[in-house]
Amino acid sequence: MADHVKVLTLDTMNPNVKKVEYAVRGPIVQRAVQIEMELQQGVKKPFTEVIRANIGDCHAMGQKPITFFRQVLSICSYPDLLDDDRFPEDVKSRARRILQACSGGSLGIQGCGVIGAPSPPSGSYSTSQGILLVRQDVARYIEKRDGGIKCNPDNIYLTAGASDGIVTMLKLLVSGEGPSRTGVMISIPQYPLYSATLAELAAVQINYYLDEESCWSLDIRELRRALEEARKHCTPRVLCIINPGNPTGQVQSRRCIEDVIQFAAEEKLFLLADEVYQDNVYADGCEFHSFKKVLFEMGPEFSEQVELASFHSTSKCYMGECGFRGGYMEVVNLDPEVKFQLTKLVSVRLCPPVTGQALLDLVVNPPEPHEPSYNIFIKERSHTLAELAKKASMTQQILSQVPGIQCNPVQGAMYTFPRIHIPPKAVSAAQEKGQAPDMFYCMRLLEEMGICLVPGSGFGQKDGTYHFRMTILPPTQKLETVLEKIKEFHQSFTQQFS
Amino acid sequence: MADHVKVLTLDTMNPNVKKVEYAVRGPIVQRAVQIEMELQQGVKKPFTEVIRANIGDCHAMGQKPITFFRQVLSICSYPDLLDDDRFPEDVKSRARRILQACSGGSLGIQGCGVIGAPSPPSGSYSTSQGILLVRQDVARYIEKRDGGIKCNPDNIYLTAGASDGIVTMLKLLVSGEGPSRTGVMISIPQYPLYSATLAELAAVQINYYLDEESCWSLDIRELRRALEEARKHCTPRVLCIINPGNPTGQVQSRRCIEDVIQFAAEEKLFLLADEVYQDNVYADGCEFHSFKKVLFEMGPEFSEQVELASFHSTSKCYMGECGFRGGYMEVVNLDPEVKFQLTKLVSVRLCPPVTGQALLDLVVNPPEPHEPSYNIFIKERSHTLAELAKKASMTQQILSQVPGIQCNPVQGAMYTFPRIHIPPKAVSAAQEKGQAPDMFYCMRLLEEMGICLVPGSGFGQKDGTYHFRMTILPPTQKLETVLEKIKEFHQSFTQQFS
Repeated sequence: MADHVKVLTLDTMNPNVKKVEYAVRGPIVQRAVQIEMELQQGVKKPFTEVIRANIGDCHAMGQKPITFFRQVLSICSYPDLLDDDRFPEDVKSRARRILQACSGGSLGIQGCGVIGAPSPPSGSYSTSQGILLVRQDVARYIEKRDGGIKCNPDNIYLTAGASDGIVTMLKLLVSGEGPSRTGVMISIPQYPLYSATLAELAAVQINYYLDEESCWSLDIRELRRALEEARKHCTPRVLCIINPGNPTGQVQSRRCIEDVIQFAAEEKLFLLADEVYQDNVYADGCEFHSFKKVLFEMGPEFSEQVELASFHSTSKCYMGECGFRGGYMEVVNLDPEVKFQLTKLVSVRLCPPVTGQALLDLVVNPPEPHEPSYNIFIKERSHTLAELAKKASMTQQILSQVPGIQCNPVQGAMYTFPRIHIPPKAVSAAQEKGQAPDMFYCMRLLEEMGICLVPGSGFGQKDGTYHFRMTILPPTQKLETVLEKIKEFHQSFTQQFS
Repeated sequence: MADHVKVLTLDTMNPNVKKVEYAVRGPIVQRAVQIEMELQQGVKKPFTEVIRANIGDCHAMGQKPITFFRQVLSICSYPDLLDDDRFPEDVKSRARRILQACSGGSLGIQGCGVIGAPSPPSGSYSTSQGILLVRQDVARYIEKRDGGIKCNPDNIYLTAGASDGIVTMLKLLVSGEGPSRTGVMISIPQYPLYSATLAELAAVQINYYLDEESCWSLDIRELRRALEEARKHCTPRVLCIINPGNPTGQVQSRRCIEDVIQFAAEEKLFLLADEVYQDNVYADGCEFHSFKKVLFEMGPEFSEQVELASFHSTSKCYMGECGFRGGYMEVVNLDPEVKFQLTKLVSVRLCPPVTGQALLDLVVNPPEPHEPSYNIFIKERSHTLAELAKKASMTQQILSQVPGIQCNPVQGAMYTFPRIHIPPKAVSAAQEKGQAPDMFYCMRLLEEMGICLVPGSGFGQKDGTYHFRMTILPPTQKLETVLEKIKEFHQSFTQQFS
């Protein structure tokens, strides 16, 4: 067996997996880790720490967890704490309520929510759909959010973060070969989960470009252009929207959402609405409208026909609990037979993390004004959201002062995606290194300033334009430093290459 | 739009998903839920409760969580508890240790394990590979388990339960079209995660049959037969083993494991070793041997060449923490380029649930003899394992007394898969109903006795033979009742149809 050749090599592995890319954790972050190590080893650098503004990892950036959530979760993990005087009564009653919804009274179960639960059409599989009590609370939350529009807990699927739900729905939606292969429309710039999942599923990615000149808004004519072009070589069946936008931070107007729904209805497209930033809206005059709500307010010819799946998560907003992998999706007008298939599919994965389900239950069902935990909860939530709002405007303000950087207002979400002018000399320098120009730019920024951003090329951008994505998550002081350093860097970079 | 046709229907959806089946939560459980509701509504039945022996959901069956684990997790969720006198010092120090390993000191992070972590070849992506500290503890645990054979933390991937890791590896391994399509060998009977995943990936499933006559042992000649047959229409590249066995409860001999490794080496097969029941071994003379250990003890021509991925989980054994979705996989001899691809792939999913990672860290790193929590930990663990051992032998004992039921000893895991004789008349009655005979049998058992089992047909079995899978998890008293009722039912069923 001296001539042993490996069974699994780059040549024999799944070619779709090879095509997967996920820039948010790409080479730039890899280099950041190395630099952190060099600093630890005492290597001299023009900076003393690497500041990571590359990923939306709130707590890692110092955002504090909500006390009420963590108190309830600690009791759910160790119910003996129910007798601990440190916890207010509402914390204890929430913990009791969640534990009672778990068969065996333990977070450690997977078959949660079934015993004694009303049997949904999909029957036993509801264990895998998530704890019934949590799905009921999610449904109430959605009804309240959407001004009373009905939500059926049986249309709620609890997920391990939003990514899990998005991947599951795309899995169901992709079929056909050659020209009948499913085409999926995604915004450019996009969040790379979409391109990565489409590559893995060998679906056809259809790019529609957001309009940077009008604050990353979505123009229906551009949707139509992309659709018609795509129809020449695939069968477009899905339209993905991220609102508020990642990486672009725009908040869609209600009018625009109506147009999109109208378009989806006319063109027979299944809508996927990624709404994980629904509580991250900062700009005056901007408001979050859920696709579900607008769909139903447009009347029965839409609300009874347009197929929609929308997604939410416990990882963003004021919670920022990425690590618990909590989330849900709501399906609307899903064919009942397909719904059964969906429930079957998720049952193979057994169940979403139960701690994430418990956390989600608290997010959709926070303390009421009359409850002892209410004041501190509101204080913590408002503080976090106010800080984010402040940082959002500061980010645009400072970056807009820099000649050669164009920065749209950060209306929502947690990112800015400014356009950067890269001098032709720098572009050629990058090409010599075989790097995308904005990768070249970000690498230099990292080496010279210790700031870790993600090049725009990882999200997609109009040819010949260059951007970076930066989170607004670092603490205000640190964020200001970051922005000033970027300013300084951009000026010297421009000089050097002009 | 009156003639509106849905975008997503059974006809247009992903045909591979349609082929997915997961019997463990199939129609029988669906009916069990309905019966539970009928009982609640006061419908008279020959029984007062449904006993679910269909799924390995330990805590739902009354198994108690390990105090030490839950105490540490509660502090990790709410670090203010570090000052609570109720917790022994070792609980607090474990919590501190885990929190320090999370950037931001919070379980809520996803970018865990990177900052200041030695950069593995796969670089930044290690965040998604799992918290470095936990991977280091897992590596130490494996080295201890395997008598000192080295384990590199960089070969450890933390997962959301074992299923997650198995699906990820299969995803990498499946490629090719027509006769070059990847074939994957799985044992029959099998755990349906395998058939479900292969259906979803459109891989070729290659069945090899375990030998029921010699206690579900694995015969290399049968492996060879299955392989040679499969080579006519696909390219076999993967061999999956479940040891201890699910649903069959056998524990593989060391000799048999050597033969399997020899076979994999000769035939150039990638080994997937599902070892989630490694601490569930009861029968005298039976011992768990990890594939990793045996592989390395067979010498360099094997340990340097045979590609292996092995899987473990926090869901089984004495922990039974299904809901936390904790687990790991270890890869051995994985091609470095493929390893990079694997790390890239898991990074798209961001990270495994951090509470599951924390729990896993405690499982691989339990209290030491000198620590205050040691005695109670040992007491709890031994109690749970002793109970399981008692129930394992009781199960075989009682079922073996029943004429028409053949039951192998439950050497390990948490299940029995007895063979049941179904009279020809019952077989025809089943066929009239369009049901598999053992589905017909289990449905009758459910209706008449309120006992929920899974028909053997959901796991695969030799044509013309019939079985059911039953967990040994119900509390001893209840389990005895279940077994006696099965005995009673089988006799009346046999009479009725003879």
